[in-house]
Amino acid sequence: MSNKAEKKVASKKHTKKPDAHIEGASQLGIEIRKEANFSGWYTQVLKRSEMLEYYEEVSGCYIIRPLAYNIWEEIQSFFDAAIKKLGVEDTYFPMFVSQRQLEREKDHVEGFAPEVAWVTKAGSSNIENPVAIRPTSETVMYPYFAKWIRTYRDLPLKLNQWCNVVRWEFKNPQPFIRTREFLWQEGHTAHFTKEDADIEVREILELYRQVYEDMLAVPVIRGVKSEKEKFAGGLYTTTLEGFIPATGRGVQAATSHCLGQNFSKMFDIVIEDPNAPAGADGKDAKKMYVWQNSWGLSTRSIGVMVMIHGDNKGLVLPPRVAATQVIVIPCGITSKTTDDDKKLVEKKINDVVEELKSAGIKAKADLRENYSPGYKFNHWELKGVPIRLEIGPRDLSNQQSLMVRRDNGSKEPIPLEGIVSRISDTLKIIQKDMFDRAKKVYDDHVKIVLKWEDFVPILDGKNFALIPWCEGEKCEDEIKEKSARHITEQEAEDEKAPSMGAKSLCIPFEQPDDPPIIPGETKCVSCGTLAKRYALFGRSY
Amino acid sequence: MSNKAEKKVASKKHTKKPDAHIEGASQLGIEIRKEANFSGWYTQVLKRSEMLEYYEEVSGCYIIRPLAYNIWEEIQSFFDAAIKKLGVEDTYFPMFVSQRQLEREKDHVEGFAPEVAWVTKAGSSNIENPVAIRPTSETVMYPYFAKWIRTYRDLPLKLNQWCNVVRWEFKNPQPFIRTREFLWQEGHTAHFTKEDADIEVREILELYRQVYEDMLAVPVIRGVKSEKEKFAGGLYTTTLEGFIPATGRGVQAATSHCLGQNFSKMFDIVIEDPNAPAGADGKDAKKMYVWQNSWGLSTRSIGVMVMIHGDNKGLVLPPRVAATQVIVIPCGITSKTTDDDKKLVEKKINDVVEELKSAGIKAKADLRENYSPGYKFNHWELKGVPIRLEIGPRDLSNQQSLMVRRDNGSKEPIPLEGIVSRISDTLKIIQKDMFDRAKKVYDDHVKIVLKWEDFVPILDGKNFALIPWCEGEKCEDEIKEKSARHITEQEAEDEKAPSMGAKSLCIPFEQPDDPPIIPGETKCVSCGTLAKRYALFGRSY
Repeated sequence: MSNKAEKKVASKKHTKKPDAHIEGASQLGIEIRKEANFSGWYTQVLKRSEMLEYYEEVSGCYIIRPLAYNIWEEIQSFFDAAIKKLGVEDTYFPMFVSQRQLEREKDHVEGFAPEVAWVTKAGSSNIENPVAIRPTSETVMYPYFAKWIRTYRDLPLKLNQWCNVVRWEFKNPQPFIRTREFLWQEGHTAHFTKEDADIEVREILELYRQVYEDMLAVPVIRGVKSEKEKFAGGLYTTTLEGFIPATGRGVQAATSHCLGQNFSKMFDIVIEDPNAPAGADGKDAKKMYVWQNSWGLSTRSIGVMVMIHGDNKGLVLPPRVAATQVIVIPCGITSKTTDDDKKLVEKKINDVVEELKSAGIKAKADLRENYSPGYKFNHWELKGVPIRLEIGPRDLSNQQSLMVRRDNGSKEPIPLEGIVSRISDTLKIIQKDMFDRAKKVYDDHVKIVLKWEDFVPILDGKNFALIPWCEGEKCEDEIKEKSARHITEQEAEDEKAPSMGAKSLCIPFEQPDDPPIIPGETKCVSCGTLAKRYALFGRSY
Repeated sequence: MSNKAEKKVASKKHTKKPDAHIEGASQLGIEIRKEANFSGWYTQVLKRSEMLEYYEEVSGCYIIRPLAYNIWEEIQSFFDAAIKKLGVEDTYFPMFVSQRQLEREKDHVEGFAPEVAWVTKAGSSNIENPVAIRPTSETVMYPYFAKWIRTYRDLPLKLNQWCNVVRWEFKNPQPFIRTREFLWQEGHTAHFTKEDADIEVREILELYRQVYEDMLAVPVIRGVKSEKEKFAGGLYTTTLEGFIPATGRGVQAATSHCLGQNFSKMFDIVIEDPNAPAGADGKDAKKMYVWQNSWGLSTRSIGVMVMIHGDNKGLVLPPRVAATQVIVIPCGITSKTTDDDKKLVEKKINDVVEELKSAGIKAKADLRENYSPGYKFNHWELKGVPIRLEIGPRDLSNQQSLMVRRDNGSKEPIPLEGIVSRISDTLKIIQKDMFDRAKKVYDDHVKIVLKWEDFVPILDGKNFALIPWCEGEKCEDEIKEKSARHITEQEAEDEKAPSMGAKSLCIPFEQPDDPPIIPGETKCVSCGTLAKRYALFGRSY
């Protein structure tokens, strides 16, 4: 299917959209412009940078190659250490769940059943009771929470697992963003009080924010989901919502759910209330259902980062998650360069790399003989390496190196003396600049909308609309319907989003104060009943 | 099924085997003697130590709880760093494989097909082309090796993934040892020459040896598998073979396979031979099939460690993989102890724990009020913590602490002054002692057998037999059959191994030299044809 997708893109580019083609781009570089054909560009960047390969055998599945997997490892290493500090322990539950357990929480199963993959055969025999592959593990884990939790002393129970899950979606797949199998962590915790659960929901959301904003340089808006969009079977869902400027679409980045007592009631996870113990009068102790949370972050995060930061030369990786932060390339070596000079250059390059590495900077030399400097520049730009250093014979005599930033293309000679602290500073600056730029774009595309007439034009301008909203489920359905008929030219072209309506992305924690919502007065922009809070609406992945 | 298994064990213990019951053991401790009912003991240790929970919903699946998962994380962290130094990169391939790919290597599919789980339904629809869940990933990965490898410059390609795999076995399952889903790493590499492949096969086997011997304190014998026992579709298999003294059975600990060119031929993984490039005469370049390896280590390792080191008080964890290495418990506090003295003891305990932790020792205090010291001793012994420190008011005045080793029960007062280096040394000694003891037991149970009449009695004495062997596949089948009729009382009782014959475990790299195999003269102990090398035979898991 990858080939088909790419061919379609390629044939389009020569007919309807000549500007989608990047002049002079070779087979190895990026040939499709991000602005002109976003989904074609996205696929090409992922494949040619060797982040990802399409898995031809099973539609909707992809191969995560080392360049991308390394980013996942960086995220794992940060997040796992952070939750362990909160007392969370890693564990591993089976990937299979029986039909009986899967169906125990009604709303939950309704949310997931249509996408559940079933194993019905082993070898050549049919399995008596087919088993589902986990789409998420609430129903796998909670029978055991019921077994392990007996008294308040067993609380809080805080478990996490890093694993694969399967959601056999029939919508069009998109690498990293919507895939039938994906990797994630899922945390599942049980608490004595709602307050404890509430606090943790926010602690975890803050860690997710750090993953996105501080590591991936991807700005997000924090908020709570509407009743319609919350986790199936949960009490409330907090979320991080990202924004893809190229399409003006939102993307749910990570969610932290408070499940309330819904699952503990279905799975009978009870303790004796320590405040109402069994009495001497023979009265039984009062039972108390525990409060539960679940929270997840997936490899989707990698796709969001690529969509936001990638450009027409390929990937642009934030330094904190780049497997190679600095590539050092010999330059200015011609047929007139003496062997000694060439050796001196290479020696210097190796020294610089070692110096950087011993300071913990992920540096690498590209001393390949059979490739020109120009080829190497393109190669490492495609792979998104944050800093390129060029060193040639003339640089040696000047004791300097040309430093080229991937994120903004700026070039600057820097002294070899003290290069470590200079590079270390520059990596921090790049990380900050990438976030700041993306944040400004996001902020610019969140528009307060106070009249329905403005709603769809604002969306069509690739923006989110922040509206005073009644928070009604019926109103949300109507907004989706009313905004679905109006679509952008881009989306009309892109068969994957033929006539998508807007949905509520979240009710942001940070509410606008101009104009403020006046209780009993401010009206819902869509249905005209009383508005409760501002809500963020947008087309989304 | 766990309950049933335990009930069976429990009822047995009161009828046939009163000595299986450990006097005075509470519900929380171990009630079944390792020597009397090994499989009952094993299950009970895993469950009561909270390493593992039986997953009632799907037979053959188990929950790996934090105490056990932590060991897996320790193994991951060591092994992953070690292979990255060898240039291996982590990746993630889909868990699904199509029937077409799965069947591409004939021997391979014959080896795995009977245990393959098939997904045939998604939601309520049938899937047009059912997909298998990977039992191992050769057939998932190699079509992409063919795509990515074009010239010798693309070699070596060294990929690894940490993932779950499914082998829907119909034999009786055993936690960690034989499970329908398990976690492992699988490395897959491609090389230019057979020599490069051979070298890597051994490098990886050496890393596996370090995991078992240096981390888990589990001795292993290294060798090569017979033709019959080698990896399905491979060229040769090197292996580590462990030994479970309680049953006298062997256990395959980890394998590193050279696949030769079998898979590269089936999957068309070819390069142009750089030594026979396309000629000016228009002759095509000569094609060359790459040489491949694959190698895997699974969570089985945790089970082997428990079987070897656990005792009638529960787990015994080697210090290097223990999540808690030192538990500090207040003792000698009675109703006469003043509050001030109690506080002083607790303060000292917290100080000691902090001191140990800041030196990188995983120490913990158990200051729970509502449990007696005796209860705590049992609790932490059950969980296998290598060192217990007891500190009470009298210890404070003597500036000392009682140190108790889990592995041998030895007790010794040690000065609080300089406690860090003393504990650090003792942890190293425990690690070494555990390995040395297990090694001696293993060595004592490997018997050179030179006459067939001795073979079965040696096996029945819970030993391995090391025999001069012809290495014939038919002879191996005969040995299995001839040794199957004679079984030990232990095995007769244990329905899981009703009449198991011996198979070849490996042909050890270290061959005995007394008596030496004399080519053209020494005969195979079983069939009487000429012997090639000594081979290790045994009953096995």
